[in-house]
Amino acid sequence: MSTTDIAKRVHDHNWKLDPIIRSLLDTDIYKFLMQQLIWKRYRDVDVTFSLINRASSIRLADDIDEGELRAQLDYARSLRLGKKEWIWLAGNTFYGKRQIFAPEYLEFLRDFQLPPYELSKADGQYQLEFHGPWTHTTMWEIPALAIINELRSRSVMKTMRRFELDVLYARAKAKLWSKVERLRAFPDIKIADFGSRRRHSHLWQDWCVNALKEGLGPAFIGTSNVLLAMKSDLEAIGTNAHELPMAMAALSNTEDELRRAPYRVLRDWQELYDGNLLVVLPDAFGTASFLRDAPDWVADWKGFRPDSADPVDGGEEIIAWWKSRGEDPRDKLIVFSDGLDVEEIERVYTHFRGRVHMSFGWGTNLTNDFQDCAPQPTDDFDAISLVCKVTQVNGRPAVKLSDNPEKATGDPAEIARYLRVFGEAGRVKRPVLV
Amino acid sequence: MSTTDIAKRVHDHNWKLDPIIRSLLDTDIYKFLMQQLIWKRYRDVDVTFSLINRASSIRLADDIDEGELRAQLDYARSLRLGKKEWIWLAGNTFYGKRQIFAPEYLEFLRDFQLPPYELSKADGQYQLEFHGPWTHTTMWEIPALAIINELRSRSVMKTMRRFELDVLYARAKAKLWSKVERLRAFPDIKIADFGSRRRHSHLWQDWCVNALKEGLGPAFIGTSNVLLAMKSDLEAIGTNAHELPMAMAALSNTEDELRRAPYRVLRDWQELYDGNLLVVLPDAFGTASFLRDAPDWVADWKGFRPDSADPVDGGEEIIAWWKSRGEDPRDKLIVFSDGLDVEEIERVYTHFRGRVHMSFGWGTNLTNDFQDCAPQPTDDFDAISLVCKVTQVNGRPAVKLSDNPEKATGDPAEIARYLRVFGEAGRVKRPVLV
Repeated sequence: MSTTDIAKRVHDHNWKLDPIIRSLLDTDIYKFLMQQLIWKRYRDVDVTFSLINRASSIRLADDIDEGELRAQLDYARSLRLGKKEWIWLAGNTFYGKRQIFAPEYLEFLRDFQLPPYELSKADGQYQLEFHGPWTHTTMWEIPALAIINELRSRSVMKTMRRFELDVLYARAKAKLWSKVERLRAFPDIKIADFGSRRRHSHLWQDWCVNALKEGLGPAFIGTSNVLLAMKSDLEAIGTNAHELPMAMAALSNTEDELRRAPYRVLRDWQELYDGNLLVVLPDAFGTASFLRDAPDWVADWKGFRPDSADPVDGGEEIIAWWKSRGEDPRDKLIVFSDGLDVEEIERVYTHFRGRVHMSFGWGTNLTNDFQDCAPQPTDDFDAISLVCKVTQVNGRPAVKLSDNPEKATGDPAEIARYLRVFGEAGRVKRPVLV
Repeated sequence: MSTTDIAKRVHDHNWKLDPIIRSLLDTDIYKFLMQQLIWKRYRDVDVTFSLINRASSIRLADDIDEGELRAQLDYARSLRLGKKEWIWLAGNTFYGKRQIFAPEYLEFLRDFQLPPYELSKADGQYQLEFHGPWTHTTMWEIPALAIINELRSRSVMKTMRRFELDVLYARAKAKLWSKVERLRAFPDIKIADFGSRRRHSHLWQDWCVNALKEGLGPAFIGTSNVLLAMKSDLEAIGTNAHELPMAMAALSNTEDELRRAPYRVLRDWQELYDGNLLVVLPDAFGTASFLRDAPDWVADWKGFRPDSADPVDGGEEIIAWWKSRGEDPRDKLIVFSDGLDVEEIERVYTHFRGRVHMSFGWGTNLTNDFQDCAPQPTDDFDAISLVCKVTQVNGRPAVKLSDNPEKATGDPAEIARYLRVFGEAGRVKRPVLV
């Protein structure tokens, strides 16, 4: 008999859309942690998020069909939390704690949907913006990036034949597994998947997460992706992001308020969370000024996530600061998460081993490394540096300085004003690869 | 709705056997070419084929369950040519010629089934023998080897989990594709798949053949496997094997008849076939003596297939002999087929380029290279040197000397007698890898 499933074949003909985002949990856990804070304290603040393609030579609007992009964004907007998803969020332990999400916030989530988007084209790029209450626009960051990255992968794969795709994925799997084997040389390492936003595709991220689970055992501590954490019974990993200090800074009415904005965020945060969730992201307006002006209680936090300095330099700076505040770095945690690949993980881990707890949030080079995998040579699979950043807060411009001027975002005049307040100390240009 | 095909799932529970050999065409074309000759001229000769595991440290009877082996052999015995298979054999062109198989031989094939086997165990090895008419026992060689090799692969994979198998095949695909990419550097090369007997599995050989077809284009000239040739519209490639001179030699009543046996085979052959099918396999009793004593008409044949000497030395010896007989090697063909892998193909091709036509029959290292592919290190996938050879002809012992004493088979006293007749010239020990 024929083994072709005729109903499936006919159904496949009828496919209108292969949705990229199929669940509101297909995002990073830090978005929920931040959303709860925003919902509790800043629910009246309007924040605009904007897509920024740092790789301006990649003309996304030429590669990705606008109709397909709209269909994917519209589909994501149609989603609500499923019943079992909601139950899992309410009942799961995060970082060993039950009920990290308050009942009132969970009620808010029950009917949550992604807000409208604004999409246009200019100069071969998409202008994609999300205007509205911060509580809502914040949730677009990860799905918007995941949609665009996956549509880009799909556009490259559209012309590939069945056999070429087979070789492509075989090589990508072989490549990732070789990385896993290298990391096995460090059984005490702690690796987390941070690759949702830049992933090649949802299914591929799923495969990568399973590869780490299979290959690294307890050295794989979890994934930032809430849906995959639920699916594979893993820890959902993450804390907070630049949008918090950026919004606080934009809301400041005086230079003094602006200077204190990064610490005000931390105060808010520690009223909601504790333990391993107390991880400082110090580089929004430069790590050097952050550390110089930090109140003493910041040294009580569990750790730091340096995100734009060279990781060895950045880590040393933080360790020295802890020591200057009388803290023992061996009780502390540094989360490395900026453009890592295996070589860099090995270098940083070997450098700091025994001096501080470390974990590695491995992103783009985990979930989107297809270099030299296509059977016909192409650079179309190279991941691009695409972000979705806060650009306006209650109508005021938002700024990120970063330790790396290449990662700065915002209006040049505003950047200049911020630089006057926070200073230029420690800012070093480094190429932004991913 | 559930996307599980319930009927399929239940059917899978009911599986008694996943047959390895599912068609009498799942063998090498040279078996049919030889069988036609045997059927025409030697249909009363009884020949015993015996399994010989040159890798005696691999205890096959420990790895492979006897019940499974019997079930596979029994299943193969139940097969007859399907109607469309028979039509294809009758109607296809081989080496550009129609009706290479005579109508009477095709009638004989119509009801052909594999004959009985004898199976026992000794010292951790299987004693597997096929007694009976040569016309029938000859057809067991490839299916018997393919069955044992695939059962061995399956025994290793039995304990592997879904994810490990995924990595295994991803790596094997990536590895083979890297070989394909290396061979692409030589667009004028001619590569054929000769990997049926030693293949990891039928499905894997199928993948490998498709990889060569996709990757090499016209440089991939075909496959020895008749079923895959039919399935993928490829040329079926092959000529003859050692069993012909071995049987002729064993039937010889005098030393003079023995000395002339290798040429008698060729006389028989050229009465049936011509063109590119006239390829001499010179090493059954040593290439040096074969060339020294060869009648002049042997130099008219299209080519040689050196099968046990170093390919560069063996090729040079043949080229020198052609020249000594007044032939231009640039009109001639050498088929290399002994334990090749990419490095060796590159070395030999580069050495002889422009001096002689060449083709490469790529076997074990094409269809069974799983070294370093398993996610947990193991040498259980290493291919072993397993052959199925003529051991008796009408009750008389059969012998192969080969250019490499490590590949000799037969009773030591008989080997000594053959060596007195054919001499030791040119015989050099080389490790037998596959």
